Amino acid sequence: MKTGFVGLGAMGYPMALNLHKAGLLAAVYNRSPEKGRQFARETRCTPVDSLAGLAKLCDAVVTCVSADADVLEVVRGLAPDLKQGALVLDCSTVSAATACEAAAKLKARGVDFLDCPVSGGTEGAKHGTLAIMCGGEPAAFERAQPVLNALGKRVALMGPVGAGQATKAVNQIVVAGVAQAVSEALAFAESQGLPLAKVIEVVGSGAAQSWFLANRGPNMMRMTFPLGFRISLHDKDLKIVQQMAGALGVQLPVVEMTRIHYKRLMETGFGDEDISALFRLKHALFKK
Amino acid sequence: MKTGFVGLGAMGYPMALNLHKAGLLAAVYNRSPEKGRQFARETRCTPVDSLAGLAKLCDAVVTCVSADADVLEVVRGLAPDLKQGALVLDCSTVSAATACEAAAKLKARGVDFLDCPVSGGTEGAKHGTLAIMCGGEPAAFERAQPVLNALGKRVALMGPVGAGQATKAVNQIVVAGVAQAVSEALAFAESQGLPLAKVIEVVGSGAAQSWFLANRGPNMMRMTFPLGFRISLHDKDLKIVQQMAGALGVQLPVVEMTRIHYKRLMETGFGDEDISALFRLKHALFKK
Repeated sequence: MKTGFVGLGAMGYPMALNLHKAGLLAAVYNRSPEKGRQFARETRCTPVDSLAGLAKLCDAVVTCVSADADVLEVVRGLAPDLKQGALVLDCSTVSAATACEAAAKLKARGVDFLDCPVSGGTEGAKHGTLAIMCGGEPAAFERAQPVLNALGKRVALMGPVGAGQATKAVNQIVVAGVAQAVSEALAFAESQGLPLAKVIEVVGSGAAQSWFLANRGPNMMRMTFPLGFRISLHDKDLKIVQQMAGALGVQLPVVEMTRIHYKRLMETGFGDEDISALFRLKHALFKK
Repeated sequence: MKTGFVGLGAMGYPMALNLHKAGLLAAVYNRSPEKGRQFARETRCTPVDSLAGLAKLCDAVVTCVSADADVLEVVRGLAPDLKQGALVLDCSTVSAATACEAAAKLKARGVDFLDCPVSGGTEGAKHGTLAIMCGGEPAAFERAQPVLNALGKRVALMGPVGAGQATKAVNQIVVAGVAQAVSEALAFAESQGLPLAKVIEVVGSGAAQSWFLANRGPNMMRMTFPLGFRISLHDKDLKIVQQMAGALGVQLPVVEMTRIHYKRLMETGFGDEDISALFRLKHALFKK
């Protein structure tokens, strides 16, 4: 299956590399061309200079962009030139409503759509070990298997279009709460004079074990917060989650608390750091 | 090393069994005798009927009780009859201050003390895979290795007496936040009509992975909350944590939120359930 890739960001770039390694990648497109040129130098895979050009070359297109408007813009750019029976897999994290809108636009052109948001951080993107939460028709999901399996190790069809994004919303709530837990706990650990590396190891071996503690705890220890997953993007995702819960009249206390803390970080210039920078706030409390 | 065990509760009972299997157990004592008789039926290891009786038989005593006052009472009961050079390992979760008080009492009798709180749930206690966070003298920690290794798989000396309890406090903060995260996220997942078993699997394969999601998520799905780890005990631990942070003038938002939710659960008769019963509150919000 000749596959195109749109969006060579922190996640998209290593994901596109994995499609290339699997022999599936036919073309890449990135809005700002420098990333495309870098990718070409690394893989000898020539970037195309338009979405239309990419659409013509491919049976499947994977998209990985930042926001709802971007997904719809990319779909508008691809749709006129995609082949009948082609497949679009959107790995962006956006609202379920946007997934449904994109799917409807493509269906009118005889093109199938799967929402396929991912989780597992830049590490997972690089090693092809992402969790991928899919929404769409079972037949489209079956056809997408070679592409999905090149990108992730745990791939699940969660329901119709939008169910992937709903599952990713669940994921983002968990990540918010775990990030809160780990940052608060390690700031406390530091205040008690405990050796943080040992704390991360031993606390991470029992009922408090988590991916986040093991993979982001060490960054907190060093007070450096490389991406990872950008605060401003997680905040955007959590806003979507609040809207989804709000539509049912429900407030989500973990999400609310986290957005308050993210707001403080964004206002003080840390919005582009990894979400583990929550530690900055907690750490500062103990230094007052 | 002839080892005694005091406190055959949900954690202590399987831990004592592991010492028995390792050929280390010389005697057990439990405040209410029925548990001791049950243990004797299972192991043919005769329970003693007093702390003094246990102290006389053993080179090392492991204690695993519920509260600060219990630890001090047990230490008072053991101290007069322990041999010079004996070792007491307290696996209870109590304050660092209580650990220091117990250590001082025993030191006066020539007995070493290690605070050794554990994490890993009843599963970890049963399988001997606990994380054990120790505080005390390096020489005492060395001597305790056979006992500690029979109980856990990750054993670390965190610092002087009290450092084990401080590390356990860190652990309890993480567990509080992760329990909040998982319960809030799965209640949301249910509200979106997602298949919860698949959600637990796929969300648990990426950056949101945690012990708690994998081991307690399925209980939430079934709306049953077997122990595990009792709400009223975790609440007690979190109160200690708040006091430790409060002494530095710091509030811990994750801990505060969790204690508010635990209070509601305890007031409505769920204080003896596993902490995963947080799901009851979150679930109820969506059903209003």
